[in-house]
Amino acid sequence: MRSHHSFPQLRYAYFLTLWVLLFAGGCATVQPDPLPSWSDGKVKQSIVGFVTRATTQGSPEFVPVSERIATFDNDGTLWAEQPMYFQLFFILDRVKVLAPQHPEWKTAEPFASVLKGDLKSALSGGDKALLEMLAATTTGMTTAEYESMVSDWIATARHPRFNQPYTAMVYQPMLELGAYLRANSFKTFIVSGGGIEFMRPWTEKIYGIPPEQVVGSSGKIKFEMQDGKPVLMRLPELNFIDDGPGKPVGINQHIGRRPIFAFGNSDGDLQMLQWTAAGGGARFMGLVHHTDAVREWAYDRQSSIGKLDKALDEAEAKGWTVVDMKRDWKVIFPFEKK
Amino acid sequence: MRSHHSFPQLRYAYFLTLWVLLFAGGCATVQPDPLPSWSDGKVKQSIVGFVTRATTQGSPEFVPVSERIATFDNDGTLWAEQPMYFQLFFILDRVKVLAPQHPEWKTAEPFASVLKGDLKSALSGGDKALLEMLAATTTGMTTAEYESMVSDWIATARHPRFNQPYTAMVYQPMLELGAYLRANSFKTFIVSGGGIEFMRPWTEKIYGIPPEQVVGSSGKIKFEMQDGKPVLMRLPELNFIDDGPGKPVGINQHIGRRPIFAFGNSDGDLQMLQWTAAGGGARFMGLVHHTDAVREWAYDRQSSIGKLDKALDEAEAKGWTVVDMKRDWKVIFPFEKK
Repeated sequence: MRSHHSFPQLRYAYFLTLWVLLFAGGCATVQPDPLPSWSDGKVKQSIVGFVTRATTQGSPEFVPVSERIATFDNDGTLWAEQPMYFQLFFILDRVKVLAPQHPEWKTAEPFASVLKGDLKSALSGGDKALLEMLAATTTGMTTAEYESMVSDWIATARHPRFNQPYTAMVYQPMLELGAYLRANSFKTFIVSGGGIEFMRPWTEKIYGIPPEQVVGSSGKIKFEMQDGKPVLMRLPELNFIDDGPGKPVGINQHIGRRPIFAFGNSDGDLQMLQWTAAGGGARFMGLVHHTDAVREWAYDRQSSIGKLDKALDEAEAKGWTVVDMKRDWKVIFPFEKK
Repeated sequence: MRSHHSFPQLRYAYFLTLWVLLFAGGCATVQPDPLPSWSDGKVKQSIVGFVTRATTQGSPEFVPVSERIATFDNDGTLWAEQPMYFQLFFILDRVKVLAPQHPEWKTAEPFASVLKGDLKSALSGGDKALLEMLAATTTGMTTAEYESMVSDWIATARHPRFNQPYTAMVYQPMLELGAYLRANSFKTFIVSGGGIEFMRPWTEKIYGIPPEQVVGSSGKIKFEMQDGKPVLMRLPELNFIDDGPGKPVGINQHIGRRPIFAFGNSDGDLQMLQWTAAGGGARFMGLVHHTDAVREWAYDRQSSIGKLDKALDEAEAKGWTVVDMKRDWKVIFPFEKK
């Protein structure tokens, strides 16, 4: 008896299923992929899975909008950092521009080596030499003067290998990721070892991240009246180093909440990732692993810039997401798409 | 010939005008007053006029949304500050709570005077005594421990004169002003001399201002691993005083843009107002003048707390908006409305 009646039911179920599948398929094609430059695979899945869990009402890991804080390192995570940090190119260019006003630099290191084009010797003085150049070229002026100097440089300077403006040397997949998070009501922040005032003039236009969501290293600033007009003077004194253990401190100082999402690429990001991981509920910790010497650069445990060693071990031990640039990114720089 | 023809035209124009007036009047009653606790007059007009100019497309003073930055002082501007800063009540309460663990405080100043209830003597040691109590009661612990301590205190402590929770001692007109600005796509920030971590646990709930939009004074913080768990430790060392000339510096550090709107109540806000005033385009600079000894307090040039002297002179000279609390605020505290 049963078998006779079950046939039409089966056919009905079959057509219903077919229709649902077609309809769902139709819907999926209506919503474009928010991460088209990311290869399909476990890395992309880990991102989409996290965002879906954090933003789905009723999900056990649902996160209220006000707590959707995402932090990104900049150098090596949002834009390239080879053959050296881009801010360093800026400082070296400033040394050259200011040299005519400083005849003493012809014989004083590290300036003399910079002017001779001998970068290796110039940078052999380590942090001390670097800070000396930083102080000599970017302090003793107002914040407004510094801002226009950065804006002029970033508009004209070009990367030595790619002959592109530095703001074109940003990672297309990360631009997509930032936009995807914001479309899901995340607030995106930069938390970088780079200079806070070096980034702010262009991060809104390039990354969609406004100045008030940029955290970075800084020098001391002093309020002064000059001819009855208030100015902020940049002093030749360090204020804060937003790197390594400084990153959670900078996050606490500026944001005042623990991120639920953090992305870095080096050991300087390890503490930010640990701080993010130590919170409850939905979490995402990610690292960019530079593995593509052809399209970008390949470096990790032995690199002096963007060294990725301890953080890579901890990511593997804790199951954090590690982007293999060569495998996971279909496109690296926006200019490749043209 | 003309006069004969002009009559029907005039009548038409008359009815059209009448209709427009009635219609416009009808519309005005549909939109409720966003500032109902503000008395009609030039102060309220200066606020509404500024917001209208800054937000009307095509207005010569139109300001893009991303630049609509408004900063508010907290003590004496958003909530009361008499008979002393509320954070000081918190610290004194902490001294009493911790006293059993510190038998030496029975004889050591300023603690001994606090424990005897002799505030005058306790505070006679000035900033040094204050910082000593601050360090003894609110450092050497994690940021999480401090946060829960503040949250517990703010939920239970009561103001000595009004017997209200401190978070009820906020100014109803300023709550309306903050909401009005946000409804007009302003980003509202607190820029206070008070402790940044003392404010953050409750500003979002009370003022609608999230932790990442709170700027304040701070102590040094250190990242540490404790039993494999990352924590941020509060060190007994000052980091930044966000008062007077520190306010534009704090604004620059946290926001990275010049505000177009700033509201304060004391000489400690003068430089923030000067910094705001020195920008181009639509500007609003406001001061709360405490003139109502019956409903709140009356104090200005001679007060040790919230001294308003130089800033009052400059406001008058420059035509900044000065709120006469007695005249301009129909309601002061939200609990009056019940």
